[in-house]
Amino acid sequence: MRPRIYLFGDSITEESFTDGGWGSSLANHFSRTMDVVLRGYSGYNTRWALKVVEKVFPPPERGGVPMAVTVFFGANDACLPDRCSGFQHVSVDEYRKNLHAIIAFLKKRWPSVRILLITPPPIDEDGRLQNPFVENESGLPERTNEAAGRYAKACLAVAAECGIPAVDLWTKMQQIPGWQKAYLRDGLHLNKGGQRVVFEEIILGLKGAGLSLETLPVDLPLIAEIDPKDPMKSFEN
Amino acid sequence: MRPRIYLFGDSITEESFTDGGWGSSLANHFSRTMDVVLRGYSGYNTRWALKVVEKVFPPPERGGVPMAVTVFFGANDACLPDRCSGFQHVSVDEYRKNLHAIIAFLKKRWPSVRILLITPPPIDEDGRLQNPFVENESGLPERTNEAAGRYAKACLAVAAECGIPAVDLWTKMQQIPGWQKAYLRDGLHLNKGGQRVVFEEIILGLKGAGLSLETLPVDLPLIAEIDPKDPMKSFEN
Repeated sequence: MRPRIYLFGDSITEESFTDGGWGSSLANHFSRTMDVVLRGYSGYNTRWALKVVEKVFPPPERGGVPMAVTVFFGANDACLPDRCSGFQHVSVDEYRKNLHAIIAFLKKRWPSVRILLITPPPIDEDGRLQNPFVENESGLPERTNEAAGRYAKACLAVAAECGIPAVDLWTKMQQIPGWQKAYLRDGLHLNKGGQRVVFEEIILGLKGAGLSLETLPVDLPLIAEIDPKDPMKSFEN
Repeated sequence: MRPRIYLFGDSITEESFTDGGWGSSLANHFSRTMDVVLRGYSGYNTRWALKVVEKVFPPPERGGVPMAVTVFFGANDACLPDRCSGFQHVSVDEYRKNLHAIIAFLKKRWPSVRILLITPPPIDEDGRLQNPFVENESGLPERTNEAAGRYAKACLAVAAECGIPAVDLWTKMQQIPGWQKAYLRDGLHLNKGGQRVVFEEIILGLKGAGLSLETLPVDLPLIAEIDPKDPMKSFEN
């Protein structure tokens, strides 16, 4: 059976199959080697994710063992508690504990599974004020970059504690001037540039975990390997 | 377990997760309702597809029962036998028989599965001459639109014989003037416009088979349904 990678996360994952999205780019990249399966839940924080994780993933006897799972939460946990999206807020301490519990669940269910943690992206506060999800007359963004950074740091700490790889999107994206508009479309969600960065970073992260086009077997003979003079020979076994 | 649709076909399927591709559009459309799983094999005709179909799909006890399968072959079967891609040619009679056998296999494995047949797209012969896959000094295209049309007609006949729905891409695409450049990038494969047509036609075909956002259950509560004053209530059951 072809290996499978689950993409587990919030809206940034749920939107990953839009035009040029990182999920579709992964599916295209691994088109003959790995199934890319979407499990994105807009608005979810780690508290809600942990509550539903049993339902999100099929039991081993029904779904087989996935090769990898990306776990990409924090953008909603990091909503400030006293602002207009405060009901999504989870403290950074609870975020850490929830990530640990999600990882423990995945490792218990599938001991061999590779987990790749992804930090929340940086926040462009001006972009958030221009594109509020809900009515926001306070003049204050519901998320700040400083808060997102604390969750990103906690995410990296969890990865280190568990000995699993992580993509530090928060830091990576801030490395170029103008990242606010180069990578984000509304101060939080990815535009095409941001989708590209996430795709490239995940490819690198998976490669580090031993999963790449060089190591994964190709599903069935490639057209370039089929002998035009005797095509059926390729299908004998 | 979330329902699944397999996309089974040749390069036009294998490429369906490129930017704006019909596969990624389907995955995005069904992001909270259905898994879209790629099984595209560049260059394959129905003879080769039939030879590998057992390996392409997991046995029922391991992979569960998919909700639907799109079967999208014919572009390679329709290569002319005496031209430069002749080794991919399959006669229109054999194409019919092979499609019947693929459908019989799928129905036997999963009696409840919905199958959606898709005809090959029309061929822009000029586009093929400008973008040959292999060296072609003959001045003649390896595929013609007339031949593709015969396979499309056979595909529709098979669908009618089996009582299953079909998307008549060959006819649909030729309904607008300039379809050659509006929908195809090399006389055969889809550009963004063509990807869009395939996506829209498949959505219609699936809707006709009872599969749509209106009928499929949403996987876990939507953010809009979660009470901001008591979010955990949504996750009690």
